[in-house]
Amino acid sequence: MAEIILVLNAGSSSLKYCAYDVHDDALRLVLRGSIEGLYTAPAFRAADAAGAEVEARQWDAGTQLGHEGAIAYLADFLRGHGEGHTLAAVGHRVVHGGVRFTQPARVTEALLAELDTLCPLAPLHQPHNLKAIRILAERRPGLPQVACFDTAFHRAQPEVAQAFALPVEITGRGVRRYGFHGLSYEYIASVLPRIDAAAAAGRTVVAHLGNGSSMCALVAGRSVASTMGFTAVDGLPMGTRCGSLDPGVILYLIGELGMDAGAIEDLIYRKSGLLGMSGVSSDMRALLASDDARARFAVEVYTYRIARELGSLAAAAQGLDALVFTAGIGEHAAPVRERVCRQAAWLGVSIDAAANARNGPKISEVSGRVPVWVIPTDEELMIARHTREIIATPAP
Amino acid sequence: MAEIILVLNAGSSSLKYCAYDVHDDALRLVLRGSIEGLYTAPAFRAADAAGAEVEARQWDAGTQLGHEGAIAYLADFLRGHGEGHTLAAVGHRVVHGGVRFTQPARVTEALLAELDTLCPLAPLHQPHNLKAIRILAERRPGLPQVACFDTAFHRAQPEVAQAFALPVEITGRGVRRYGFHGLSYEYIASVLPRIDAAAAAGRTVVAHLGNGSSMCALVAGRSVASTMGFTAVDGLPMGTRCGSLDPGVILYLIGELGMDAGAIEDLIYRKSGLLGMSGVSSDMRALLASDDARARFAVEVYTYRIARELGSLAAAAQGLDALVFTAGIGEHAAPVRERVCRQAAWLGVSIDAAANARNGPKISEVSGRVPVWVIPTDEELMIARHTREIIATPAP
Repeated sequence: MAEIILVLNAGSSSLKYCAYDVHDDALRLVLRGSIEGLYTAPAFRAADAAGAEVEARQWDAGTQLGHEGAIAYLADFLRGHGEGHTLAAVGHRVVHGGVRFTQPARVTEALLAELDTLCPLAPLHQPHNLKAIRILAERRPGLPQVACFDTAFHRAQPEVAQAFALPVEITGRGVRRYGFHGLSYEYIASVLPRIDAAAAAGRTVVAHLGNGSSMCALVAGRSVASTMGFTAVDGLPMGTRCGSLDPGVILYLIGELGMDAGAIEDLIYRKSGLLGMSGVSSDMRALLASDDARARFAVEVYTYRIARELGSLAAAAQGLDALVFTAGIGEHAAPVRERVCRQAAWLGVSIDAAANARNGPKISEVSGRVPVWVIPTDEELMIARHTREIIATPAP
Repeated sequence: MAEIILVLNAGSSSLKYCAYDVHDDALRLVLRGSIEGLYTAPAFRAADAAGAEVEARQWDAGTQLGHEGAIAYLADFLRGHGEGHTLAAVGHRVVHGGVRFTQPARVTEALLAELDTLCPLAPLHQPHNLKAIRILAERRPGLPQVACFDTAFHRAQPEVAQAFALPVEITGRGVRRYGFHGLSYEYIASVLPRIDAAAAAGRTVVAHLGNGSSMCALVAGRSVASTMGFTAVDGLPMGTRCGSLDPGVILYLIGELGMDAGAIEDLIYRKSGLLGMSGVSSDMRALLASDDARARFAVEVYTYRIARELGSLAAAAQGLDALVFTAGIGEHAAPVRERVCRQAAWLGVSIDAAANARNGPKISEVSGRVPVWVIPTDEELMIARHTREIIATPAP
């Protein structure tokens, strides 16, 4: 009987999923979708691998479907659509693996207890990630589950890249630069060898530009530095997140504007970035289409900061052999890529306007010293691959 | 009668001064010193231009000399040592000139009122800087005074380099990257043309490495980017300051460790940086002499972060034609310069070990593409020059 690997990404108010058909040597996406608004106005969507809608359902506003109800609904739905298939395992995106997890891990009670201790490091995400795992463990005790961490890939970084200049009383509590989007970078590193063998063996900076944006320097496929820090608010400006911010600004917001931690969190996570600067939208497409001076300025700051971080990451890698753009903006926003590449000319980066307009895959000039690639990321497939590998290994 | 220009740097508990003899075309340092411990155990020191002690005096512990008493004492002392000299003007180091001041300014009541409004942006320094100006204005109403701002030189930076990705409700209050150490960078830019004309005309990164550390990218002598931000805590790690820190860490300190703004300020300004990481000392000399693993790690993080910022600033300048080290560590710590240069090899930076050991002035290899210089800074002379120029211009 054919097997299915389910990939789950459980947030505070949504559950995203992908279902993969397990072949001998490959994983084939069969369904993907989400349940949004778990506690407000739930909406279920499912599409096939080509993106065609398979099912959509809306609950009444006020319906408290919750994580429990969402998982139950999804399980029923998959059973209904999976004739001849059996669910082999579930792979979860878990935001935080702390210092210890450099690899995905099979779910056990002990693992969950350890991951619980990391909740203070990612209070907005970690509890929801773990909740989904626990619900499934209760419903299907025998079903293998695997936790794949957004932080694990970056644990290869040298200690100096992970350190904040704080006293050990603070850093000893786990206050360090974890970096995130690790599953995306790991996916790019996994496909790079067959796209550009020299880049894969050398020093490549990957720009994961989406609603959440970060960058990572790879040397021979391993992370040596990244822009996100202790949390996913650091580094590049994002849709609604501010990115790097002088810590003195936070003290000013408290001392001079009388803001409390909740208001500051709301400001730097949900009201800043492209939305805050433009006053118009967090959506790059809207900003690029706008004539508003503030919208243009927001795009300028975004690309400028990418160009600055590119220099900083090239320093971490001791040079630059290739540049890769990925994720929503990275894969689709040609004007963003063009501005970044023009500002990176000093590094040997060039851009072929026609190739860039058709979104690559290679967008540098033929004569360019540094190849520039557009490579679609696939974090879910990375999770599915890890899950399949781990369940193929006998449990200890 | 010969004229004296006095330069004052008034802090919360100390008053530093330099007295310059005004020649036709030059300013000659005649005395320099400080009064420390203004509110605890005041101590006065004066030395001549060669550094030989001219006078030292200690008050009893508990003596509240204050800014008022310190300025009165200094004025008396200068009168006693300045036979045949008259005090022509006083130039003050003022930390904050806000957005508007791109140049030093002659002190008037209106200027002081405007500078008062900037106190919330630099509450630890600005009030003390202004207090010294007001005390002198009261004692000597006719004496010309000039305010020289640590921020002014950086106002030439493009807007994108000064912007945080925050909403206009916040940035409109003056929350932006000001950069500091501007008088030091301006001094370096002023002497660079006769040391290295190509560097002065091109893209030079200056590393001002002292107890406070920052870096600045110059293009044709103008600041295009710097590492310090809204406050002087941002950017590089320093003696006791943390430098760049994920704003999410501040939220963690509040939410998980229950720290308030005062405790956080104390942590990030006075207990972090080299002192915090090493647990030993904020003094680079002590760390370089130590065998302690944490002391070594602190130095590694310090030089790593300088190397990263060098890449970022080269991106701002679109390349690197020269590198300059200045200030206490930059001028004297050969091992720090050596590590930074080795990590910057990818940019064409090299180091001549013998030249580096004797503190330059040129420490790159003869064949090196990017010349590297050690140039002593002189912020006080820069203030004296500005002061002389401004008092030579008739008041409007």
